[in-house]
Amino acid sequence: MKAINKIDAGTSEKMVCGRSIEVFFNEVERFHGFVSPGLVLGGFMVDWVQELIGLDVEADAIVETRHCLPDAVQLLTPCTIGNGWMKILDWDKFALSLYDRRTLTGYRVWLDLNKARLFPKIYDWYMQQVSKRDLLLEVLLETILHAQRSVLSCRAIRVTRFYERRKKGRITVCSGCREAYPSAQGDQCAACQGEGYYELQG
Amino acid sequence: MKAINKIDAGTSEKMVCGRSIEVFFNEVERFHGFVSPGLVLGGFMVDWVQELIGLDVEADAIVETRHCLPDAVQLLTPCTIGNGWMKILDWDKFALSLYDRRTLTGYRVWLDLNKARLFPKIYDWYMQQVSKRDLLLEVLLETILHAQRSVLSCRAIRVTRFYERRKKGRITVCSGCREAYPSAQGDQCAACQGEGYYELQG
Repeated sequence: MKAINKIDAGTSEKMVCGRSIEVFFNEVERFHGFVSPGLVLGGFMVDWVQELIGLDVEADAIVETRHCLPDAVQLLTPCTIGNGWMKILDWDKFALSLYDRRTLTGYRVWLDLNKARLFPKIYDWYMQQVSKRDLLLEVLLETILHAQRSVLSCRAIRVTRFYERRKKGRITVCSGCREAYPSAQGDQCAACQGEGYYELQG
Repeated sequence: MKAINKIDAGTSEKMVCGRSIEVFFNEVERFHGFVSPGLVLGGFMVDWVQELIGLDVEADAIVETRHCLPDAVQLLTPCTIGNGWMKILDWDKFALSLYDRRTLTGYRVWLDLNKARLFPKIYDWYMQQVSKRDLLLEVLLETILHAQRSVLSCRAIRVTRFYERRKKGRITVCSGCREAYPSAQGDQCAACQGEGYYELQG
């Protein structure tokens, strides 16, 4: 916890989804491997939409980037990539939505660049205007902990796509490798069709 | 922990990545929402490849299905979807690889159907030969805890694709929504180009 040791103790009263900042940072480090600014800002995003939607609603998540943000959702909500309650759109937009899986209504929260301009360190970090050498992680994290929702915007939405749970199709045995694969993919599995990513060793 | 209460106490000596079965089941339930057979079998897969590759190696992961298995990797290794150390191939093959990110050598482990035939409950579950009503979760879990690696095969591999870390490209401001997006995606962000998944409410 190198980063948090240097951070202003005043942040200790702030909460993310019912956790103290210290507990949240510990969880982030254990799960994600390190405390990344995107994941910390993501914590405040999840905190906001979860507060709006309420904890009693069974909510699914859509995350609009594969970088960092999905881990905030996986840490702070029941939605994971493996249980299918979180979907990732590979758009590299710093935004996510939580929505009631029954009514499809919910909230989208995003990094609002107009608001972020008031926190130049956050704007410059996200917009790649400054090198990592010139903006220390501790300083950026402190700014994010200070800004919290002030750099975010949030709107009520109704989800119109991507809400379907992806079911596994019919499983069969591949005539190439003899492993199980979905028959809808063709005569053989993806690897045997030439998409394989490895060569055997030894 | 409904499921584990009914499971033979003899399983308490088994370990998954240094955890007791009880601790592992608790982690699975907390992270994934429920104890799924795929995730439990996935635990033994990760346990095996991690033992082979060694804990001192910085390993990346490739998972060959989006269902369940990615959560075993996220729970038991430092690799997550958000930190980019785990990649998911949407192939619906019950297989995963851990490999040294420096040498690209590692191990692939998969559900071996020939071996699984010796455990008909596991074979029938995975090959969709039996309904959930006719195969109780507790019975299936007990069989998986009994089988462990006996239904798996593992081979040394060298990874030839998908090993590159995906970097964010140049970020710019979308002329439509004024949010940040990668300029490589075109004049506007994916949502403003018509890929959006929501309509605004209220």
